[in-house]
Amino acid sequence: MQESEKGNKITFMVDKEKDFSEWYNTIIRQAGIIDDRYNLKGFVVYRPYGYFMLKAIAKLFEDELEKRGHQQVLFPVLIPEENLAKEEEHVKGFKAQVFWVTHGGDDKLEKRLALRPTSETAFYPMYALWIRSISDLPLKLYQTTTVYRYETKATKPLIRGREFYWIEAHDSFSSEEEAMSQIEADRETIESALLQELGIPFIFLRRPRWDKFRGAVDTYASDVMLPDGKMLQVASTHFLGTNFSKAFDIKFQDRDGKNKYVFQTCFGPGLTRILAAVISVHGDDRGIIIPPKIAPIQVVIVPIPGPDVLNYARKLEGILREQGIRAELDDSEDTPGEKFYKWEFLGVPFRVEVGVREVSAGTVTLFNRATFKRESVGLSDFVQRIRSEASKMTDLLRERAFEFFNSRIGYASSLEDLNRMLNSGKCLVRVPFCSIYEDGEACGAKLEELGLNVLGSKGEVPERGSNCLVCGRVATDVAYLASTV
Amino acid sequence: MQESEKGNKITFMVDKEKDFSEWYNTIIRQAGIIDDRYNLKGFVVYRPYGYFMLKAIAKLFEDELEKRGHQQVLFPVLIPEENLAKEEEHVKGFKAQVFWVTHGGDDKLEKRLALRPTSETAFYPMYALWIRSISDLPLKLYQTTTVYRYETKATKPLIRGREFYWIEAHDSFSSEEEAMSQIEADRETIESALLQELGIPFIFLRRPRWDKFRGAVDTYASDVMLPDGKMLQVASTHFLGTNFSKAFDIKFQDRDGKNKYVFQTCFGPGLTRILAAVISVHGDDRGIIIPPKIAPIQVVIVPIPGPDVLNYARKLEGILREQGIRAELDDSEDTPGEKFYKWEFLGVPFRVEVGVREVSAGTVTLFNRATFKRESVGLSDFVQRIRSEASKMTDLLRERAFEFFNSRIGYASSLEDLNRMLNSGKCLVRVPFCSIYEDGEACGAKLEELGLNVLGSKGEVPERGSNCLVCGRVATDVAYLASTV
Repeated sequence: MQESEKGNKITFMVDKEKDFSEWYNTIIRQAGIIDDRYNLKGFVVYRPYGYFMLKAIAKLFEDELEKRGHQQVLFPVLIPEENLAKEEEHVKGFKAQVFWVTHGGDDKLEKRLALRPTSETAFYPMYALWIRSISDLPLKLYQTTTVYRYETKATKPLIRGREFYWIEAHDSFSSEEEAMSQIEADRETIESALLQELGIPFIFLRRPRWDKFRGAVDTYASDVMLPDGKMLQVASTHFLGTNFSKAFDIKFQDRDGKNKYVFQTCFGPGLTRILAAVISVHGDDRGIIIPPKIAPIQVVIVPIPGPDVLNYARKLEGILREQGIRAELDDSEDTPGEKFYKWEFLGVPFRVEVGVREVSAGTVTLFNRATFKRESVGLSDFVQRIRSEASKMTDLLRERAFEFFNSRIGYASSLEDLNRMLNSGKCLVRVPFCSIYEDGEACGAKLEELGLNVLGSKGEVPERGSNCLVCGRVATDVAYLASTV
Repeated sequence: MQESEKGNKITFMVDKEKDFSEWYNTIIRQAGIIDDRYNLKGFVVYRPYGYFMLKAIAKLFEDELEKRGHQQVLFPVLIPEENLAKEEEHVKGFKAQVFWVTHGGDDKLEKRLALRPTSETAFYPMYALWIRSISDLPLKLYQTTTVYRYETKATKPLIRGREFYWIEAHDSFSSEEEAMSQIEADRETIESALLQELGIPFIFLRRPRWDKFRGAVDTYASDVMLPDGKMLQVASTHFLGTNFSKAFDIKFQDRDGKNKYVFQTCFGPGLTRILAAVISVHGDDRGIIIPPKIAPIQVVIVPIPGPDVLNYARKLEGILREQGIRAELDDSEDTPGEKFYKWEFLGVPFRVEVGVREVSAGTVTLFNRATFKRESVGLSDFVQRIRSEASKMTDLLRERAFEFFNSRIGYASSLEDLNRMLNSGKCLVRVPFCSIYEDGEACGAKLEELGLNVLGSKGEVPERGSNCLVCGRVATDVAYLASTV
């Protein structure tokens, strides 16, 4: 599986809890996820092992989107500046981050072209052509592609880059209610793919108004908790209202014969960040642990040298592959110990060990990467056993992740409380807060001085009589505070 | 399936043979393949129906590449100018076609960045890092992605655009022999995917030296024949020799302990052009005919109104879907006739018609889009019948395409012969030719004045005593001449 890793011994022993950053950086490079030695800041190469997982993650989300009535399209990567400028707030939000194409060959282009930072302004002129009447709605299209942002912050592979891989869904509806229920549908998409299939807990929050997507009415985001306690936004859904439909003149003729502007939402799960989350949340001191659904290799077979062992191992590989399981026989010249080490580092969910004992007994020794348990399984059962263990493995990874997540949530009603919480290891703290609307921005800014972000609100109603922990005004929101990546 | 086509009646009646260009332009727009009203010349939007086919075509090629030992990666879209400039010939070939990124936000970038026109110069600096010893070889990686060329010729959707969707495979070997056998493997990949799975005949030729890929030693290309007799290059394989490995310093330590430059090949099937070929070659005056393997909808079920018909039709849809067949029930308010018309235009391979007669007899009426044959099939057989008909349909499409292709090939030994051939409808003409090496270029230029390109040679040896039909020198090659798109 690993291109150009042949014969390289991997030596890995980094304490994830003590030095998460070192752990992460070592893993993503050595496991063949990415290579960041490409000679352009913020741009990385996705290597086969990493790209396989990215594609598998994309597929999980694509399937969920299709289930919910979306269809896949592909829009141009270049967006004329005039398109970008149509929605005033939007262009303000992105202009400083745009990579501009100005020349074709030796010709200066008539109009500057933006490398898409996000595609609202590519999609919506076409929506204005495609949407005519109520029968064209809802229109729900998405693309799985890369976007480009001239980031001025320090870049970090998979987490903050200048090129990243994501899905963006753009939906148009005839009413505000339908649009709002799409936001709930997007939350369900995240829950199905991220939580159920990949075992990553998340919190779904309405962002403060001062931190919304520029051009949107409101932004709803999904954040996951990294091992260092920082929160990482992995997806967002924006309620655009009619801001863009007015700017791009997207109207439909309703049943009453009147022309009306559509209501819009857009949804963007960040595939590279989700891969970063999967690696970070589930990994341990031995390396990564890949949920079976997206593992490039689901089962590695390691022969312990002896008579007939290799033939037996080959037969097992054949059986597993025939059953659609991604199995690989490691018949390299490494020692079994080196092989164990390598494949555990690479996070292969299951290892099948076979030696003379297994051959003569007609069994295999099955090793589980998440539990470290070894068990002997008869040849007639082992495929089924691997299948059932695989589904349990994702459950176990999810439970562990939840345990960590829940143990780090606290509640604080005052700044002293908040400090105590943070010092005791809580990293996501619920607080009574004046307002996540515009008038809470000053309090948000004060918290930012402490290194905390107001992530937003779940819509919970604060306890009667509780006051904003910053300004002391009556709290109208329960806000979630955390440091962010 | 068709976003925003709801309720739109399609009226199509264009004679493919008489006016292929009009036929093609009407089809790709009205069938929801692309929309070329995006406000940027040479950039189109791939709509759901077209994008599904593009992805399915990509998958056919990806599977073939993986079978032959390739792994998928993703490289950055931006390439620093210094990389592009490393191989002298290569940069000459592409510089006039590059879209340049010069600014990030308001900052002028330190170095100009090319939007990839092709990715040799992105891949190979990394290959220099990844390849160390003979055990790292062969290295065979590919990406499925978009590339960008500032075309000055008139653009044509799917055929010549400024953004196109393709696969590029980049391979490194320890010897010239291995590299040359990769060229044969690439021909096999084209044969498996394009000819076998999609039913499109092609001719595989070594291009004349004056028409090779800049930076390569030799270029081998696959051309298909369009209904108007023009040849369309849909894929090319380049033997790069050590031209790039020397420029990028890609060396390996061989078994003899010596450091040597790798030999390289690269292979690029153009997915958008292949889709254009599938549409163009197989379609007829009623619309497109999609090979079942890549059809977004493989079976459409059309109920002929009557008691119990709709339930029966729903049941059929369920059965087909459960069997993994992409089936769709058309329960719209259109008349059956309108539905027939629409789905034939869209090229759905099979139509299942059900009315009261079918319900009471427990049968379906199965219509084949390629043969126009209708037959009655019992409920217990119909899934199997559709499967076997599907495989026969691709065979039939291939046979028909071959018939056309073969009927248009001629042989000419003089310019008069050649004229006679072209006038009699031959469009791909074999001729004795002085040389497809550099010294044949002048003869090539003369043929170009007649609107003919020297496509290249199959390596056939000309008959003893035959002379170049242009200059009269002794022929060393049998060349293929045609007009190209």
